Amino acid sequence: MNKVVIAMDSFKGCLTTEEAGKAAEAGIKAVFRDCETLLFPIADGGEGMLDVLLSTTNGTYESLTVHGPLMDPVEGRYGLSGDGRTALIEMATVSGLPLVPREKRNPMLTTTYGTGELILDALRRGCRKFIVGIGGSATNDAGLGMLQALGFRFLDRDGNPLGIGGRIMSEVAAIDTSAVHPALKEAHFTIACDVENPFCGPDGAAYIFAPQKGADSDMVKELDAGMRSLAQVIRSVTGKEIADYPGAGAAGGMGGGFLAFLNAELKPGIRLMLEALDFEEKVKGADLVITGEGRVDGQTAMGKVPSGILKEAQKQNIPVIVIAGSIEDTEKMNRAGFQGVFSITPGPISLEKAMQPEFAKANIRRTVSQVCAAIRPFITR
Amino acid sequence: MNKVVIAMDSFKGCLTTEEAGKAAEAGIKAVFRDCETLLFPIADGGEGMLDVLLSTTNGTYESLTVHGPLMDPVEGRYGLSGDGRTALIEMATVSGLPLVPREKRNPMLTTTYGTGELILDALRRGCRKFIVGIGGSATNDAGLGMLQALGFRFLDRDGNPLGIGGRIMSEVAAIDTSAVHPALKEAHFTIACDVENPFCGPDGAAYIFAPQKGADSDMVKELDAGMRSLAQVIRSVTGKEIADYPGAGAAGGMGGGFLAFLNAELKPGIRLMLEALDFEEKVKGADLVITGEGRVDGQTAMGKVPSGILKEAQKQNIPVIVIAGSIEDTEKMNRAGFQGVFSITPGPISLEKAMQPEFAKANIRRTVSQVCAAIRPFITR
Repeated sequence: MNKVVIAMDSFKGCLTTEEAGKAAEAGIKAVFRDCETLLFPIADGGEGMLDVLLSTTNGTYESLTVHGPLMDPVEGRYGLSGDGRTALIEMATVSGLPLVPREKRNPMLTTTYGTGELILDALRRGCRKFIVGIGGSATNDAGLGMLQALGFRFLDRDGNPLGIGGRIMSEVAAIDTSAVHPALKEAHFTIACDVENPFCGPDGAAYIFAPQKGADSDMVKELDAGMRSLAQVIRSVTGKEIADYPGAGAAGGMGGGFLAFLNAELKPGIRLMLEALDFEEKVKGADLVITGEGRVDGQTAMGKVPSGILKEAQKQNIPVIVIAGSIEDTEKMNRAGFQGVFSITPGPISLEKAMQPEFAKANIRRTVSQVCAAIRPFITR
Repeated sequence: MNKVVIAMDSFKGCLTTEEAGKAAEAGIKAVFRDCETLLFPIADGGEGMLDVLLSTTNGTYESLTVHGPLMDPVEGRYGLSGDGRTALIEMATVSGLPLVPREKRNPMLTTTYGTGELILDALRRGCRKFIVGIGGSATNDAGLGMLQALGFRFLDRDGNPLGIGGRIMSEVAAIDTSAVHPALKEAHFTIACDVENPFCGPDGAAYIFAPQKGADSDMVKELDAGMRSLAQVIRSVTGKEIADYPGAGAAGGMGGGFLAFLNAELKPGIRLMLEALDFEEKVKGADLVITGEGRVDGQTAMGKVPSGILKEAQKQNIPVIVIAGSIEDTEKMNRAGFQGVFSITPGPISLEKAMQPEFAKANIRRTVSQVCAAIRPFITR
């Protein structure tokens, strides 16, 4: 074994991606002392992804006060890559649901304005590449608030500028781009998006996500009608067809807003992550890839981190082993292409015991070393 | 993978050796459909060993009434190999501790006579090979009772024949073999013996095992003195030196009785088992050996089934993988030579759940198939 790539997700509530990865690395070194190991910290969304990407670029966090979902001031932050060219933004930090008290949650009123302010700040600092995570929003405004912060003006049929919140979507009749920040044309946006919901309709943003953001059934209908209307305006103004676009409904239509006005690419978080880490190039020549997370089951074959890793590794015919705290439906995972799926659990133990970080690390290390030991006789033959 | 040998111990209280072995076999076939699998049922002692050996020779059980530890009638049985040449005897079935009520346990009085009767019956039927398991006895008579049943007469210093029980050992002054069954000369005895205790002394039968058979400290001293005296008589009569022989103290000196008078070989149960199954020959050319048991730890590296399997496999440079319900101290096992040690536990679960036979079978099957799947890419390269 000459080269092994390790790309573990975090073991939620137990180990970070770095901790899990280092434990796996120790397991490899215990058997193949001189094996090259490449350790990729992995997170497919949220603050965890920003942290990982930021640390790989030696970046820093920028802090500033922006507008929250109800236009109240909130302390926001975003990541700035070491070279100052790329901004790493998680919309939930300024437009997220936890920022709104339960009784005030109302996607007719909440806005993504603050996310636009983060983008604007980075744009002014010279960033032209943007990586944006769009999970966990409090909003259903199709990103109109974000666009307003960037200088877009949305006008009603009388030419009057509209206010904020999901309720304006149905009133948009024209769009004034004369005040849009000029650097936006040079900017490139990559959006981490793990849902495939269309912009509107029964699987769209309003019907699927608005209720958990505080919408009652009347609001849901109104929001969906607003999105349908907005999609038509967008088509007539930009020529873009977003109503049925997979992912356009993510984060209350934020996906659609990015697609329509900011020329963005939507990508699954893990793919974005792997591209940012240059995984495809670095994995070349590896004999084995080890991935894993706290819990894997048949669903793992469909989404999440290990399957993203698998796709990349399969392109290069590198076998992928999965290590997890708890495993289920391994045959389905084998059919998906994982070569071996192993639980780190050494015997009948409680969940509490299993979640002890030092114990979990020792179990990862042991399991990886045993897999390596089992493979070893077949390599040297 | 062309040939895999499976030799699983039982998972105590959960799966038989056959069940565990078949589950492992299914795991191999799930990955290597055309792989030859050789399934060895394994048991290193007790009734389980008899059952396994008997079924491999297509043998049958013979039943007969003999004398129990206190000379009361007990229903005994022994195995007769398919060809009628080999008898398979477990001494505990007629001379075992569970046959004596707690309040009557007294190794001064208990005898191995019934075991001798089983041997005699088999001898009369034409058996000349004997495989005898000697664990769990109620006795400390150095096998004198067994020998009496076969025609040996033990005489005191006045030439009077002695009775039965551990108490006669100190009185033996001469041995009359004139009535010994003549066929005994042609018989060969192999004794499954997993202890290394000498005949007498502080690590001998009386000091180590007699207390659990009902001896108080005076009896222990008396029994030990009797064994020392008997060992001297044996030396003068047969020329054999059994006092310090490892294993001579097994089963209340039964090991010594076999060695002194029946020309027996003592062997660890697992070695006896593997020889009886012709393991050494049949394992030839295997790519992998899979063994396991309910629970393995650092001690497994020292004794028990997997280490016996390991020894044989190592002679032929065949890697050995261990599959167990619960694992510990795997590094020690790796140092001993096991290539990989895997728990079948899929996640944090209760012992009760882990012990459900169908669940355990599925877990063995899965674990073996995942190990095979992990190995596969490295075989074809």
